[in-house]
Amino acid sequence: MSTTIYTIEPVGFIRSELTRLESAPLQGDEGAPEAWLELTSLAAPGLAGITAGDELIVLTWLHLARRNVLQVHPRGDLARSLTGVFATRSPARPNPVGLHHVSVLEVAEQRLRVAPLEAIDGTPIVDIKPVLTGSDPSDR
Amino acid sequence: MSTTIYTIEPVGFIRSELTRLESAPLQGDEGAPEAWLELTSLAAPGLAGITAGDELIVLTWLHLARRNVLQVHPRGDLARSLTGVFATRSPARPNPVGLHHVSVLEVAEQRLRVAPLEAIDGTPIVDIKPVLTGSDPSDR
Repeated sequence: MSTTIYTIEPVGFIRSELTRLESAPLQGDEGAPEAWLELTSLAAPGLAGITAGDELIVLTWLHLARRNVLQVHPRGDLARSLTGVFATRSPARPNPVGLHHVSVLEVAEQRLRVAPLEAIDGTPIVDIKPVLTGSDPSDR
Repeated sequence: MSTTIYTIEPVGFIRSELTRLESAPLQGDEGAPEAWLELTSLAAPGLAGITAGDELIVLTWLHLARRNVLQVHPRGDLARSLTGVFATRSPARPNPVGLHHVSVLEVAEQRLRVAPLEAIDGTPIVDIKPVLTGSDPSDR
């Protein structure tokens, strides 16, 4: 693709009852359970200010995804024509970053309990961001 | 943070009239211009199926951001107390991935013209995803 390479160090990992890809829903709103976001000791100070009830976007590294795939049948449905991965939410893509919109249920020391989350146990966390709401930038 | 490291190869780059961080808005809806997403030849087949009018989420690598910062004053406002980066949209964070909600204005061969986009010219593109809308998963 390009000769420039960037490196990602996970800031934490997902702890979930979902342990197999086959049993994970395709999207959070399709029956995904709650899960814990377990931050590393080094990254945990980045959680300051997050409280129960917050809406977050969790970025994960879908470490089991195939990265050499550029076109897929959406949702694995062979009846649907081959589509570019950038037009789908398939985990298969050159840089398999997952996006998950979750609500915070509980804040513990280095951990957040959130729901819903369709990523499986052990999935690395790349980043966490607040959902932007309202039109007033000073809220951000 | 962790000994596991993942690598990102950009799938393309932003081409924008914004060339200096100082002149870039903090968020797309704060007056950001249109821009081109220029894909690499290898990644371009991943665009198949994207058409003008689509709503996309563009993930970028904020290559100029400081990665060793875990708490910031939101929006650089010293009157606001130090907050964990995961509770803010600051570009400074361990893995500086930017999220940008854009509309597609035009599809060219290996490029998409989109708006609004606050990232500066040359910013690497990590991924592109459709915005999920509607409650029917078969739309996805």
